[in-house]
Amino acid sequence: MRKTIGILGGMGPLATADLFRKIVLLTDAGSDNEHIRIYVDNNIRIPDRTAAILSGGRDPVPEMAAALRNLEACGADCIVMPCNTAHYFLPELRTMTQTPILSMLDITAEVCAKTRPGKRAGVLATRGTLATGLYNQALSAQGVDCLLPDKPGRDLLMAAIYDGVKKGVPLTPMRDGLVSLVEDMTNQGADYFLLACTELPIVREVLDLPGDFVDPTTELAKAAIRFCGYPLRESGAGKEQ
Amino acid sequence: MRKTIGILGGMGPLATADLFRKIVLLTDAGSDNEHIRIYVDNNIRIPDRTAAILSGGRDPVPEMAAALRNLEACGADCIVMPCNTAHYFLPELRTMTQTPILSMLDITAEVCAKTRPGKRAGVLATRGTLATGLYNQALSAQGVDCLLPDKPGRDLLMAAIYDGVKKGVPLTPMRDGLVSLVEDMTNQGADYFLLACTELPIVREVLDLPGDFVDPTTELAKAAIRFCGYPLRESGAGKEQ
Repeated sequence: MRKTIGILGGMGPLATADLFRKIVLLTDAGSDNEHIRIYVDNNIRIPDRTAAILSGGRDPVPEMAAALRNLEACGADCIVMPCNTAHYFLPELRTMTQTPILSMLDITAEVCAKTRPGKRAGVLATRGTLATGLYNQALSAQGVDCLLPDKPGRDLLMAAIYDGVKKGVPLTPMRDGLVSLVEDMTNQGADYFLLACTELPIVREVLDLPGDFVDPTTELAKAAIRFCGYPLRESGAGKEQ
Repeated sequence: MRKTIGILGGMGPLATADLFRKIVLLTDAGSDNEHIRIYVDNNIRIPDRTAAILSGGRDPVPEMAAALRNLEACGADCIVMPCNTAHYFLPELRTMTQTPILSMLDITAEVCAKTRPGKRAGVLATRGTLATGLYNQALSAQGVDCLLPDKPGRDLLMAAIYDGVKKGVPLTPMRDGLVSLVEDMTNQGADYFLLACTELPIVREVLDLPGDFVDPTTELAKAAIRFCGYPLRESGAGKEQ
């Protein structure tokens, strides 16, 4: 029997819905029954990850563990977390379960090394992800060079993530600033960009931002489909939906 | 503590993702923690509902019940099913649980009666939903008159649902036929249309079909948000995402 996926979600909810949809669209299935069984716990009680890392906010691990237990009880064969910042707590979570938890960061770093060898990645992320050096470490383990946004760039990204997507507020007023950020980082040597916060693929899609982007949510979806032994839909197909 | 939602999904997977996303977008939340906890079992092992009703296909109830038990074990306070045809089995499912299962059909019929009094609804649905008279009954209980598609119209809808959305195949070649179907039914007296199969809101969105449509997935999302005691986002807001 083929394997199933548990989505440890709620970080945030729209990013959770985005990962779910990407798994469905990227599975090469001809009917409902050829898709993957997916369990989700959209656990909105998980405290903010960036606040926990940077400013003494509540520890998110107990609520992450509660969701993990629900997904295990359902029978999930692997766990995925559509939140890059949450991966700071991945080593601790892994000690709590026998179920493999796929690392979105390691998967993304491998894709970068393979598809864009010798190029430099611009990392667009929350302050929490940037401060912990999570992506720097994952990328450098794959020999991928990276560039981080400056202070005003970080502020702009936090605004798009927290005051835009997580609040459900229109993003259009932020478009010019984000386009400039990508241009500035390109001038500083970034060859392509990691949408290294799961709200950012939504920002990119809604604002139709120009540039060469790697979407960790998409890469995580593909890796989970492969882990479960299902065929991947060829890129481009199904894209319409 | 506010209530939680269990999505009995997999019928089909993309419709399940659509309902999840609509619940998130329609909740008036300012941060992750203000959203609703949602559990999903995307149980793709549930046999096809139309086949079970019309042509002696396997009974879907045991696998629907298996998903129900998972959602109850997680702690869902109400259950929603993003599949109109599956509502044929709702009375049987309700005997198996104390947890309220919201009826997408009753909710939609109430919205029709309230927002479009005295108007006639054109029902766009699968052969299974149409053959069982599920919507006729729900609508007539609310005093709503309805019109069903003719044989070629039903064939076209089945193709859009089964050969389009459920297969992940581009829908554009079906656009002209669907536009004609809506025009023909309008000429026969339909004032507006029910997207009475959860794949059809996806078809309408992708093809940008013109007309006045009621989307049962959206109405189910709103009813579930209200059931859980959360505020609804004003219509239009958050729509960008």
